[in-house]
Amino acid sequence: MPGNTFGQIFKVTTFGESHGEMIGVVIDGCPAGLKIDPKLIQKEVDRRRPGQSKITTQRKESDKVHFVSGLFEGRTTGAPLSALIRNEDQRSQDYSHLIDQYRPSHADFTYQMKYGHRDARGGGRSSARETAARVIAGAVAKLILRKSGIETLAFVSQVGSIRLEASLDQMDFSQVEKNIVRCPDARVAKKMIDLIDAVRKDGDTIGGIITGVIRGCPAGLGEPIFDRLHADLGKAMLSINAVKGFEYGSGFGGVELRGSEHNDPFIEREGKIQTVTNYSGGIQGGISNGMDITFRVAFKPVATLMKPQISHGTQGKRTVIQGRGRHDPCVVSRAVPIVEAMAAITIADHLLRNRTCKMQENQL
Amino acid sequence: MPGNTFGQIFKVTTFGESHGEMIGVVIDGCPAGLKIDPKLIQKEVDRRRPGQSKITTQRKESDKVHFVSGLFEGRTTGAPLSALIRNEDQRSQDYSHLIDQYRPSHADFTYQMKYGHRDARGGGRSSARETAARVIAGAVAKLILRKSGIETLAFVSQVGSIRLEASLDQMDFSQVEKNIVRCPDARVAKKMIDLIDAVRKDGDTIGGIITGVIRGCPAGLGEPIFDRLHADLGKAMLSINAVKGFEYGSGFGGVELRGSEHNDPFIEREGKIQTVTNYSGGIQGGISNGMDITFRVAFKPVATLMKPQISHGTQGKRTVIQGRGRHDPCVVSRAVPIVEAMAAITIADHLLRNRTCKMQENQL
Amino acid sequence: MPGNTFGQIFKVTTFGESHGEMIGVVIDGCPAGLKIDPKLIQKEVDRRRPGQSKITTQRKESDKVHFVSGLFEGRTTGAPLSALIRNEDQRSQDYSHLIDQYRPSHADFTYQMKYGHRDARGGGRSSARETAARVIAGAVAKLILRKSGIETLAFVSQVGSIRLEASLDQMDFSQVEKNIVRCPDARVAKKMIDLIDAVRKDGDTIGGIITGVIRGCPAGLGEPIFDRLHADLGKAMLSINAVKGFEYGSGFGGVELRGSEHNDPFIEREGKIQTVTNYSGGIQGGISNGMDITFRVAFKPVATLMKPQISHGTQGKRTVIQGRGRHDPCVVSRAVPIVEAMAAITIADHLLRNRTCKMQENQL
Amino acid sequence: MPGNTFGQIFKVTTFGESHGEMIGVVIDGCPAGLKIDPKLIQKEVDRRRPGQSKITTQRKESDKVHFVSGLFEGRTTGAPLSALIRNEDQRSQDYSHLIDQYRPSHADFTYQMKYGHRDARGGGRSSARETAARVIAGAVAKLILRKSGIETLAFVSQVGSIRLEASLDQMDFSQVEKNIVRCPDARVAKKMIDLIDAVRKDGDTIGGIITGVIRGCPAGLGEPIFDRLHADLGKAMLSINAVKGFEYGSGFGGVELRGSEHNDPFIEREGKIQTVTNYSGGIQGGISNGMDITFRVAFKPVATLMKPQISHGTQGKRTVIQGRGRHDPCVVSRAVPIVEAMAAITIADHLLRNRTCKMQENQL
Repeated sequence: MPGNTFGQIFKVTTFGESHGEMIGVVIDGCPAGLKIDPKLIQKEVDRRRPGQSKITTQRKESDKVHFVSGLFEGRTTGAPLSALIRNEDQRSQDYSHLIDQYRPSHADFTYQMKYGHRDARGGGRSSARETAARVIAGAVAKLILRKSGIETLAFVSQVGSIRLEASLDQMDFSQVEKNIVRCPDARVAKKMIDLIDAVRKDGDTIGGIITGVIRGCPAGLGEPIFDRLHADLGKAMLSINAVKGFEYGSGFGGVELRGSEHNDPFIEREGKIQTVTNYSGGIQGGISNGMDITFRVAFKPVATLMKPQISHGTQGKRTVIQGRGRHDPCVVSRAVPIVEAMAAITIADHLLRNRTCKMQENQL
Repeated sequence: MPGNTFGQIFKVTTFGESHGEMIGVVIDGCPAGLKIDPKLIQKEVDRRRPGQSKITTQRKESDKVHFVSGLFEGRTTGAPLSALIRNEDQRSQDYSHLIDQYRPSHADFTYQMKYGHRDARGGGRSSARETAARVIAGAVAKLILRKSGIETLAFVSQVGSIRLEASLDQMDFSQVEKNIVRCPDARVAKKMIDLIDAVRKDGDTIGGIITGVIRGCPAGLGEPIFDRLHADLGKAMLSINAVKGFEYGSGFGGVELRGSEHNDPFIEREGKIQTVTNYSGGIQGGISNGMDITFRVAFKPVATLMKPQISHGTQGKRTVIQGRGRHDPCVVSRAVPIVEAMAAITIADHLLRNRTCKMQENQL
Repeated sequence: MPGNTFGQIFKVTTFGESHGEMIGVVIDGCPAGLKIDPKLIQKEVDRRRPGQSKITTQRKESDKVHFVSGLFEGRTTGAPLSALIRNEDQRSQDYSHLIDQYRPSHADFTYQMKYGHRDARGGGRSSARETAARVIAGAVAKLILRKSGIETLAFVSQVGSIRLEASLDQMDFSQVEKNIVRCPDARVAKKMIDLIDAVRKDGDTIGGIITGVIRGCPAGLGEPIFDRLHADLGKAMLSINAVKGFEYGSGFGGVELRGSEHNDPFIEREGKIQTVTNYSGGIQGGISNGMDITFRVAFKPVATLMKPQISHGTQGKRTVIQGRGRHDPCVVSRAVPIVEAMAAITIADHLLRNRTCKMQENQL
Repeated sequence: MPGNTFGQIFKVTTFGESHGEMIGVVIDGCPAGLKIDPKLIQKEVDRRRPGQSKITTQRKESDKVHFVSGLFEGRTTGAPLSALIRNEDQRSQDYSHLIDQYRPSHADFTYQMKYGHRDARGGGRSSARETAARVIAGAVAKLILRKSGIETLAFVSQVGSIRLEASLDQMDFSQVEKNIVRCPDARVAKKMIDLIDAVRKDGDTIGGIITGVIRGCPAGLGEPIFDRLHADLGKAMLSINAVKGFEYGSGFGGVELRGSEHNDPFIEREGKIQTVTNYSGGIQGGISNGMDITFRVAFKPVATLMKPQISHGTQGKRTVIQGRGRHDPCVVSRAVPIVEAMAAITIADHLLRNRTCKMQENQL
């Protein structure tokens, strides 16, 4: 049973392979009447584009978004909103030597086991190229959220063991796009970039962490019992390539606290009930409480190395392989817009889901 | 749009409130022909039962599982398998003083915001009592998995800052049930119990971590792109009350490694392709690779304290509240069977989903 | 993959077998804040109850509805709303002779083929007893619809070849409950009752047709492309035991008309756009247009006869069987509340679905 | 909540508008390893193509199917299988005069009511052009079914009041494609064609009926309670443009029979249990019994007339309109491949669903 769709009402389906003709997305359930500014969409996709800086893959793709349905006079009609991106730089020969091999910590072996055969060109469907389609959907979701005063933000908070230690309250999000690693502190960003560059020259790769913040989310989003807001958000993040962990609010660190330290007392500010602290990460009982939703996402080091490593052929023989394609030494900088996109899709979906939870004056 | 169902094929729906007449579960999609041993089911539910030791809540519930449909002559028929548990110890008066209050870090406020009114008796639907219904479903899932040689194991690996440092390979899982905190190392367990007891006497609470291991899982389970095995497993865990984080394989720690350290080289052992290391945590590209699936789940300290804390009334006034019910000072020991149950449900669902992924000789 | 749930947002799941301990229903997605009047629910269930007249089965069941979750102080909370009905008159011995037989035109053979074994007591899950659980859900749906001024009506329009020929405009729906066959024309009802009684004395059974009308449905319900309102309504009706056909508006008769006769011209009445005729049956392009939604449902003659018929044993031998239980000679009178219930569930679900279709001033 | 996807495991999503740039389909859940012969797919799409004969619309479209994902070396990979068809003959000016009008018995009014604005070019999303995408998916489904020896057949059995009276047993399906109306009896076909031609010259339209037969379907497909095979088949058919009714087996005619006439006695033929008659239409209790599945689908006369009719402007004024585009005087001949396609999709989905219904020796 397939799993290429995310969301219950704002339903995002992606299709296409890394080295096929194109990738695409169908958004079924985008509310009618939303004005789509293609430039804003393209801008988001450009933030994820390969070749944008020296610390990313040099694969050349213009990643031009082309909407093909669901729009009339610039506004959504309620029909499926779909868009395509052509793959331009498909150097399949880069991968031809890998058809008979299972690259370590890639999906080659597991796809082969599951399906009996696989598209070996550039990882096929398992390539992170698929996430470009998600960024389109995320950009549409952001337009919906904007109408409700909600924004989904993310930044790189750790590369290897270099951490940004500042608190979220002091963070200047306007600085995120000011450097190529997308860390809002220029000094820390410099160290991160230097580390990635050193790792890259080494033919190696390194992991990192992205912190996400959702601002302006009203109280009430999220569904008991299984579709808690943080559970869906967690699934959204864990579905991104290379992600190994998700935590929200106090996360793993919170386990060492006592309840008397960890509880968030309620307080009334300007007629609104808020909490003094935010260990809850903006979500209580699976439902947003109106505070900032905060979370962190762990990315492993990319599996493709530019140095030799021992691998295993499909025929059972040990081999030595070495990445020859164009790969990222560290994914986090390009993953920032993907994290934002998946967060936006999740919140937009729950915003729509929430419309159905109670009786209304006007029953429609 | 509701969220009380988990799973795509093995579909688990729970219903009932903490202080209502009963709680229940409907499993739709349990394969026909499965022999159900009620004693095994009851035994799993008993592991989660309140009042089992001095470090858990003293609420008295026999939690007797009563199957009411889906069975004929002891075997499942393919019809919905449903079971009920009566609530016996419903001292609603314990909570009457809380109706007009939002307890800090509980779901009172968010449920009120979402639904406009709420069942304030013992947390109503947001109470962890609901998880007893999941344990029934998990026990049924375990019976399915057993037929395929798969088992889902879990244990307490951290309470507060007391950690079990041993590696999974050296773990003796037969020791988990030998102590009341469910940590397989007797010495560390003793420290954990002492800490929880001290915290309890203090009227306070403490968090902890549960480590899970799924053994015997064949390669091939999990669905690209969004329903990756670890994404669904993560959602399953994040849907458990008090969970704040999920990681699998190398998790958050893995971000500091280089790809050349983190990659898991393939090796052939006894005619089977395996990996030398298991930083992947048994899952690559979202699909199981046949190695042990390993993950960790972070639980926050319980929000209900037996000491006074400042809260906020529904009418806008600050108040001082103090838990008067019977609550757990630390949830992890009772959460072990819940983690196992949700893991079993997730794997059983993907085991069934996987049956449909490719053409077969016998098309049926 | 199971199929015991109906609806996308107002999700109805039934469980239980004809001769098990109880049957039940879980409604997940019932909006919070709906006042539930248990008497109204019971009244609807009583209309379907066996033993209500000489032309129905004499099985004795009080069919007492017992709500067990989802309510607080008489109103829905947004949590799963569930209810149980105990089976009282389970004379399983009536069916013991049938365990080794496949009754003609029953589900015995197909359940056996599908699942490998079956609950042979009274048809088990395939018995129409399951529809009592649907009537509970339908009654809840009716309460939702009432708040929007919508009502779902049905009546018996044909038994065997006895037809009610009156037009819907002239129909007095207050007469439906005035006779035991539920046909609003007393004279025609008398003929129908006489026919059913004669058939019953003969140990035989007869089919019939139920006409449904949904009044007050606003324009805009239904979802292109596959979830057209009439497609979901048709599926709802076809899921009722013994149903063989569904048509709406002009239906099968409409195929003989020309477009110039069949088209429904628009007209403005009291500031509202309506249609002069209603061959469309209140639905155009799969979406309600504000006119009455009209449809017809065909029921086959019941398969259980009180006279001998040739059958086939599970071991391959021909046998002669004869119904010994208590069965309906014609199902249509008891099926009227079921048709209404399934219509109400379908419309309530689409009413809620429709809340998400467009951008709103207030995005929540 | 959107409705552009059909199927639970073999999931078909269509997108695109009549006068947009292209239409497309994404099939998520097509089993891996299926060989796709593009010529066979194209052939099916050609059967639905406009302009194929004098009794169909003269719109010129080559309807060239272009697969863009999910294939590797000619076989499905388990990834979403997607295909596009460019719209070539988009004479939007033909429709410009209709933007301010609600055409009688079209979806103009209801889409406007639902979404607040609409794509008025050629009916936009509500145009039957969308069904070309379904035919692609249906052709893929047919390839799956073929591997299991199942075929979905359909033919025109009625146009206006001209009926084909022959029984299904005597039907020569090889004759269906021998004439332009797709009726297997040449003599009746001639009459039908003459009628359609006369109606066309009159600027009018006429309805008709398509009969469907599914051969070779094994016993066991279909899911109690709501997803009965005939309920899903019915929904599939009712989702096709212009369909007003669905019946299977004895259908509406069966209501006049007695149970003793209508029951299908079991008989053993060549070691297989079959039924002597087939009033059940191959489905009992919602599950296939191994006999031919038979059904009938009613199509209304097309709403677009080439003669003047009274309509209603969006601004409230009565107007006179006349179709100026190129439209079908009767849809049934072109709808035959659509009926077959939707039947194939439904059966393929249930074939896959059925793989999960019971425990297996090999649990995978």
